[in-house]
Amino acid sequence: MANIVSISEADDPRIAAFHKIRERDLTGRDGRFIAEGTVVLRMLLAAHRAGRGIEAEALLVLENRLAGLAPLLKDWPQDKPVYVANGATIDAIAGFHLHRGVLALGNRLTAPDFSTLVASLPEQSLVLVGCGISNHDNIGSMFRNAAGFSADAVLLDETSCDPLYRKALRVSVGSVLTTPYSRQGQAVSLLSALDATGFLIAALSPSGKLEIGDIGSALSGRGRLALVVGTEGEGLPAEVLERFLTVRIAQSPLLDSLNLGTASGIALHSAARAMGRLG
Amino acid sequence: MANIVSISEADDPRIAAFHKIRERDLTGRDGRFIAEGTVVLRMLLAAHRAGRGIEAEALLVLENRLAGLAPLLKDWPQDKPVYVANGATIDAIAGFHLHRGVLALGNRLTAPDFSTLVASLPEQSLVLVGCGISNHDNIGSMFRNAAGFSADAVLLDETSCDPLYRKALRVSVGSVLTTPYSRQGQAVSLLSALDATGFLIAALSPSGKLEIGDIGSALSGRGRLALVVGTEGEGLPAEVLERFLTVRIAQSPLLDSLNLGTASGIALHSAARAMGRLG
Repeated sequence: MANIVSISEADDPRIAAFHKIRERDLTGRDGRFIAEGTVVLRMLLAAHRAGRGIEAEALLVLENRLAGLAPLLKDWPQDKPVYVANGATIDAIAGFHLHRGVLALGNRLTAPDFSTLVASLPEQSLVLVGCGISNHDNIGSMFRNAAGFSADAVLLDETSCDPLYRKALRVSVGSVLTTPYSRQGQAVSLLSALDATGFLIAALSPSGKLEIGDIGSALSGRGRLALVVGTEGEGLPAEVLERFLTVRIAQSPLLDSLNLGTASGIALHSAARAMGRLG
Repeated sequence: MANIVSISEADDPRIAAFHKIRERDLTGRDGRFIAEGTVVLRMLLAAHRAGRGIEAEALLVLENRLAGLAPLLKDWPQDKPVYVANGATIDAIAGFHLHRGVLALGNRLTAPDFSTLVASLPEQSLVLVGCGISNHDNIGSMFRNAAGFSADAVLLDETSCDPLYRKALRVSVGSVLTTPYSRQGQAVSLLSALDATGFLIAALSPSGKLEIGDIGSALSGRGRLALVVGTEGEGLPAEVLERFLTVRIAQSPLLDSLNLGTASGIALHSAARAMGRLG
């Protein structure tokens, strides 16, 4: 049976990690992060069980959600607390109305390493690379799409934000916890390293040379592809666009651009099709 | 020169339409709507000039943004007021911190009619149909993608929300104002009407029969295609899936689904490619 602890005061030190989470969003700097809602909780438990360096540490649940969560709680680690509080207390803890009623505290024990991750990638491999992605929504969408199209990893440069931010995690529907990723290094050196291990580098840009639907012709049988995306505003650094193959998503000349989530989804779908990875 | 009016009190009746816009979001029920930011303002002015039943009525601008807006204000209708206020006043009017500093009031004089719109569509035509889309973000994304891939119209059923909601308009980057659309009727009758005018109806569903990248084979030269999307949760009504061709976006069996914005973007990209509409 889960280790259930009743909480009646919002300032109870045992639930300090959940205090005012919106204002002081845990950044993952010490490895800790907040997972919201049952779908993300399920992914956290899957990652915990998989033993890939992600641990579930504590759960805070609205009292009237406890019964409904019973099936999930069977997988909750026995030695980790499940805090239960009523609506008023839980809202006072979180600092806003928590309609989902489920908050979990997770801990990433080890930050994933780029070189180790790349060395572990399979012979046939599709990865999504992000450069300078600072918007939490966009990071979350990239992971959701990467998981949706079974990409093998997401590789972020050091200027991208931490995907363990609460909002990024939520928008990713928890797939940050299940998709291998790293966040380190400069864009050009990451891409050069991928290039050296047999990846075709395809950098997305509105002025790209090849339409993404024709990516199969550039692969010509090669089994490794890295799709590279930059920020919505500035796009990818000039050095990246000069050194590697550029790819565009053909669209109306009247609108400036698709949002990054949609663009990465279109690119992953086209690439996964061209590589014969979709059923 | 624009008709500039200085405002110093948040409760000045002349700017009542901008009061607490977050709380009482104008729904477009009386045709009026709020456009935020310079990009959406530009689209409003384009729609105003095009004379398609959309008018710019009033503008509220942060005083220190006025100089920067001068190029845009040359296109502002001379007889419509430009209200100017300082930061504290404008935040008190809007009811939240308005960092964009630009709010416009627009008026849709006539609600677009489905039959009239369909009758006006070109021989070669791509439309996006939405059924039961109640999420403002999703409506906005659908319009942004429809504009991005030069779709000829967006056709919403009567249970979808009004795309003139402030957030939908913002997420659409103003393309609600420039992409022809209607919002009326029941899904099956709308689709039957499109079917009768030569449209291939392709209903998106995770269990769809045809992968979207193969849509060209179903079109086999036909020049009219209607892509149909439903809500993220429930999807399209069973009756729609039974009566029309169903199309899927192949993806990982591990994740439940893409978000609607991304799914509609992928479908529009694949369709526009298959129809030879992309450069």
